[in-house]
Amino acid sequence: MTEQGRFLVVEGLEGAGKSTAVATVRHWLEAKQLPVVCTREPGGTPLAEQIRTLVKQVHDEQLTAEAELLLMYAARVQLLRNVIEPALATGHWVLADRHDLSSRAYQGGGRQLDRKLIDGIRQAVLGNCKPDLTLYLDIDPAIGLARAQARGELDRIEQEQLVFFQRTRQVYLQIAASEPGIVVIDASKPLMEVQQSIVAALDAFWEQGHATLA
Amino acid sequence: MTEQGRFLVVEGLEGAGKSTAVATVRHWLEAKQLPVVCTREPGGTPLAEQIRTLVKQVHDEQLTAEAELLLMYAARVQLLRNVIEPALATGHWVLADRHDLSSRAYQGGGRQLDRKLIDGIRQAVLGNCKPDLTLYLDIDPAIGLARAQARGELDRIEQEQLVFFQRTRQVYLQIAASEPGIVVIDASKPLMEVQQSIVAALDAFWEQGHATLA
Repeated sequence: MTEQGRFLVVEGLEGAGKSTAVATVRHWLEAKQLPVVCTREPGGTPLAEQIRTLVKQVHDEQLTAEAELLLMYAARVQLLRNVIEPALATGHWVLADRHDLSSRAYQGGGRQLDRKLIDGIRQAVLGNCKPDLTLYLDIDPAIGLARAQARGELDRIEQEQLVFFQRTRQVYLQIAASEPGIVVIDASKPLMEVQQSIVAALDAFWEQGHATLA
Repeated sequence: MTEQGRFLVVEGLEGAGKSTAVATVRHWLEAKQLPVVCTREPGGTPLAEQIRTLVKQVHDEQLTAEAELLLMYAARVQLLRNVIEPALATGHWVLADRHDLSSRAYQGGGRQLDRKLIDGIRQAVLGNCKPDLTLYLDIDPAIGLARAQARGELDRIEQEQLVFFQRTRQVYLQIAASEPGIVVIDASKPLMEVQQSIVAALDAFWEQGHATLA
């Protein structure tokens, strides 16, 4: 029987350095010759990518906070059932650019949607599937947004006000402090230090996993 | 102050005769010179119509039952906030080709999704907004599907097996028997009789409304 793969997630606000972090994790996994499947959310399947477009685009019509939440989870369940779960079951390590924690932070914190609604949907959609390790790249949104703006045009969500991202960050930090498996990385540090922190977190996770197996 | 409009919904399986029923109701409303806004679900706003396309199209990728449900409610909340609620608030009568009862019947009955999940989403999305009158056109799915097939190509949901529609019908009938404001119309009768039943239901609703106001 193939050993079940592990589910690693990179999380954080716009401009926190998620793409670089994903590359660092991928490099670490490849060095260990582990089979990797990379995903991004919202998206990662043909249908979920269509939903991503709906969510990201600026429309003449106001996209309600509730519809945004429902679309995020519709995309997520497609990715989970059609990519993540099959990959894990066949021994792949899944490396995700955003997952469920993003919805809890952005829609629960930023949009201030009812937590009970979010939790009800999460339970139904996610069931027992949860990440083995989440790396949350923490950044002051004022810094993160300046970085994101320097990169080019902002999408619909990136156009929100600073206070939206401050609420989002607050929920990220609250959840990271209260739930296991989430490592907070200080993303305001120089790139080299951030990468070292990521590798240290991965090494600790790896040793822990092997200690458990031993 | 403008009097709040009323919310009328036509429901039923494929081939039950919803389009003809909608035309009958519209004619009745116009004869009373009531201002009417017509909607259809899923759809009825630019964003909701994009979601409709996602839901109706046949894809290579399996659309999960959970994603289907979430997409239906994402489309519904867009229509509700951006069309139905503003229309009712400005004194329009809303005439809907399908609404929430469809999801309860198709996703709850046909797809057998957890009722608690559906109810949680409904409560969050719909709040206190509910139809004043629902006309449910009841038809044996074997007859309805034969009619729908005769009309042309079937969409993704219409391609389901007979037992799917039998479960859907069962939930329609259960809810119609247990909740107020839903009139069951026998849609297997000749067209003229069906139309007479619809008009009778509308007249009764109208008199009831005026009796309450008097």
